[in-house]
Amino acid sequence: MREDGAVPADSGALGPQFDFLLQEPLSRARGGDSLQKQLLHRLRAAVLDGRFPAGSRLPGSRVLAESLGVSRNTVTLVYEVLSTEGYIEPSRQGTRVAALARPEPEERAHPAPAALARRGERIRKRELGGVDSFAFAPGVPALAQFPLAAWRRSLDRVLQRGGTQLLGYGPPQGEPALRMAVLRHLALARGMRCAPEQVVITEGAQEALSLCVRLVTDPGDTAWIEDPGYRGVQTALACGDLLVVPVPVDAEGLRTSASDWRDRPPRLVCTTPAHQYPTGAVLTASRRLDLIEKCRRHGAWIVEDDYDGEFRHSGEPLACMQGLTPGAPVFYVGTFSKTLFPSLRVGFLILPEQLVDRAAPVVDELLRGGHRHEQLALAHFMESGQYSRHLARMRRLYRRRRDALRTALAEHFDVPHTVTGGDSGMHLTVWLPPDAPDQPLARAARRHRMAPRPLSQHSLLPGTAHNGLVLGYGNTPESAFAPGLHQLAHLIRDLD
Amino acid sequence: MREDGAVPADSGALGPQFDFLLQEPLSRARGGDSLQKQLLHRLRAAVLDGRFPAGSRLPGSRVLAESLGVSRNTVTLVYEVLSTEGYIEPSRQGTRVAALARPEPEERAHPAPAALARRGERIRKRELGGVDSFAFAPGVPALAQFPLAAWRRSLDRVLQRGGTQLLGYGPPQGEPALRMAVLRHLALARGMRCAPEQVVITEGAQEALSLCVRLVTDPGDTAWIEDPGYRGVQTALACGDLLVVPVPVDAEGLRTSASDWRDRPPRLVCTTPAHQYPTGAVLTASRRLDLIEKCRRHGAWIVEDDYDGEFRHSGEPLACMQGLTPGAPVFYVGTFSKTLFPSLRVGFLILPEQLVDRAAPVVDELLRGGHRHEQLALAHFMESGQYSRHLARMRRLYRRRRDALRTALAEHFDVPHTVTGGDSGMHLTVWLPPDAPDQPLARAARRHRMAPRPLSQHSLLPGTAHNGLVLGYGNTPESAFAPGLHQLAHLIRDLD
Repeated sequence: MREDGAVPADSGALGPQFDFLLQEPLSRARGGDSLQKQLLHRLRAAVLDGRFPAGSRLPGSRVLAESLGVSRNTVTLVYEVLSTEGYIEPSRQGTRVAALARPEPEERAHPAPAALARRGERIRKRELGGVDSFAFAPGVPALAQFPLAAWRRSLDRVLQRGGTQLLGYGPPQGEPALRMAVLRHLALARGMRCAPEQVVITEGAQEALSLCVRLVTDPGDTAWIEDPGYRGVQTALACGDLLVVPVPVDAEGLRTSASDWRDRPPRLVCTTPAHQYPTGAVLTASRRLDLIEKCRRHGAWIVEDDYDGEFRHSGEPLACMQGLTPGAPVFYVGTFSKTLFPSLRVGFLILPEQLVDRAAPVVDELLRGGHRHEQLALAHFMESGQYSRHLARMRRLYRRRRDALRTALAEHFDVPHTVTGGDSGMHLTVWLPPDAPDQPLARAARRHRMAPRPLSQHSLLPGTAHNGLVLGYGNTPESAFAPGLHQLAHLIRDLD
Repeated sequence: MREDGAVPADSGALGPQFDFLLQEPLSRARGGDSLQKQLLHRLRAAVLDGRFPAGSRLPGSRVLAESLGVSRNTVTLVYEVLSTEGYIEPSRQGTRVAALARPEPEERAHPAPAALARRGERIRKRELGGVDSFAFAPGVPALAQFPLAAWRRSLDRVLQRGGTQLLGYGPPQGEPALRMAVLRHLALARGMRCAPEQVVITEGAQEALSLCVRLVTDPGDTAWIEDPGYRGVQTALACGDLLVVPVPVDAEGLRTSASDWRDRPPRLVCTTPAHQYPTGAVLTASRRLDLIEKCRRHGAWIVEDDYDGEFRHSGEPLACMQGLTPGAPVFYVGTFSKTLFPSLRVGFLILPEQLVDRAAPVVDELLRGGHRHEQLALAHFMESGQYSRHLARMRRLYRRRRDALRTALAEHFDVPHTVTGGDSGMHLTVWLPPDAPDQPLARAARRHRMAPRPLSQHSLLPGTAHNGLVLGYGNTPESAFAPGLHQLAHLIRDLD
């Protein structure tokens, strides 16, 4: 071997079309590709780029091996792979290059280096732009308060005890232990009555909603959503190719009209009855019963998204629609993203009991049972009481933060505004006058590491654009309220 | 308080409609619901079932509190919740019951207890029926060989070092560290060249495929799939409401015809070029180039599902279609379910570079960045070399098992049959004569804790029903081959 690791080659026996192999010899340099791999890649490239025309003969393995200074076995194996891939074919006269259609590479397929760099830049920005830690980001719980050490112990316990048993696919509906823990928690905390077979563990609320769409709708069906409302809902409905009809929300929650029911009756109604997102309205009992009754009559289904119902700030948690009347056509969607942490990606769906049979094969088909360690760690976390304790602590924390934010708004936000919501959850909605347009305001706020969400982003009906900010207080400490609100008021004045 | 924990009540001041509260008094028994919660549930139920007619007046909070022997504050809070929920309304004459539409509960919505029990039984069966550990189950890697202790260390390291930073949402395309690790691995092991922005981390191969569907198809578009082929593909395509056209497979892989291209040109072509599932054919270079060229001409896209390409048993791994020609319209789908373990639920998608821009907003919309600890643990596992070492060990193990299974088939399976596949991966395909129908055979095998998959389940075109068994050897020890094959041969004779 030469000092640079190159394998000495002998051009004598090969034709000139093999010069490319001899001029830049194969290298045995440490850490590089094996000789076999190098030879394979080079010969493959030579066939592809036309240096070896179709039908031309390759030298025998012995000749090529000797010329290149490699073992005959190496060449044999390379020929074998090339033959399996169909680049070369054995023939009576030896090995020949196969006839291949060689597509012309398209110019437009090669982005210029500058364009590539710009893309990379944008991607990096999106990645660094995680706004969970920004002040007022809605929907993010108090991450620093999560009992991570206890969670690590729960998870490690499962990894240690479960052994390799848990590495395979789990039941598509989720681990039975977790489904039972969810059921017991809902029964105790929310008075919900359901059977274990109604519980399906999902990858967060979004997958639960997608499952509802697959279960009861066909493409082209109508779905009603709240306006203003949560944008994520639209994505899942759009994926089912549903016709989305925005239905207005007032102080009593979703307000359906006789003409809506007559002219565009829904197959699916998506609602956040416990704490309408983003206005904070509670869907009244009379509207709940009316909605259930009308859905029954029209063969429609309700998706009850209870995204933050665990954090009710006064009195007991509100009852769910799911348990309101027996056999109500309601899917109940819950998530651990708000009660534990978002990157856990665990949510759940409570199926209406009359759908359990129809759902089973769909669930089997659509969901893969996985994340078994995480699911069992979560079950243990719940059954050992750590979950309830964490919820109780967070409920107190969020109530304190809500009170502090209301006070801070009154004292430090000297812009005309109205505040709604805050009976539960982790956000207040602040309505602003039209001369303080929320979208430029939110963009300006980002530059100051604040991420309130513009209310107008949640509006769907033309001409109803609401204007204001959704202020999350879940992951924002009280000390940040006054300076943040001063800054926002300042930014509003600068918008003029 | 009485000995049984019941709260003493005084009926004097309340009307007879409150008897239900007095006859079964609220209880302070330990571990039960709070008085407040009990009172809330009972009053809510009373309004719902009509015991309190609309407009009827509720006693003042002081009177009710005294009669029930609870604090006035308890009653006030309960009234507050009921009022928020809209069950009662404040009026000038005190608190009144709201007018509610009371839906009749439907009889059919109540499944009889027997039906419920049967369902429970079925669900339990499905849950216990995990066949990962059954002999010959295809698609399951050698779970007992997974270095679980090392994986635990990787995971715990991330949980400890990452702190609460990693609890929030991550980038929707996946953790940058994992995307870089995937990219480096693919470059080294498969000669693939791509930019970091082309890599998207997904929940397994299924989500990757769904993403392809959302990116380049509209409902009603045509998708070609291999026949016989992997059933999971159909699910993802059905979710996109695509028209699925089965295209036959022969010894050189997917065989498209001029009439297919003319009469039902595809928008998407799903293929397993490295090791066709289940036949084991390798798509030849000439067909690969032809497919790429035709897809370009027809504006179609290829999904290259490389589910077991890492386990090539002879020579170097085959080159991917993705890197074959610059700008090839190919999505490359990979998964860690086979190389590590299924319940990890991590896969990846390599986007064609010309789609990176179009994909970014779709990925942001559809995927939630999560499982950050797991993703970073996996990145560490890969970058520290543990992944390659595990792959190399498994490659040797599977090659040994494949050889042993081939030998065992020849020696112990005394039924006429042909064997295909096995150049890579973890399964052999055994073709059987028509008098040994595969579906009843597979059902009978289950009772003996064997889970070979019937080949006919993979057939789509009418009149082409293939007959045979897919025998997985990934998670089946060599010692189980001979007895299992004897048993299968025995079952075939019993079928007659």
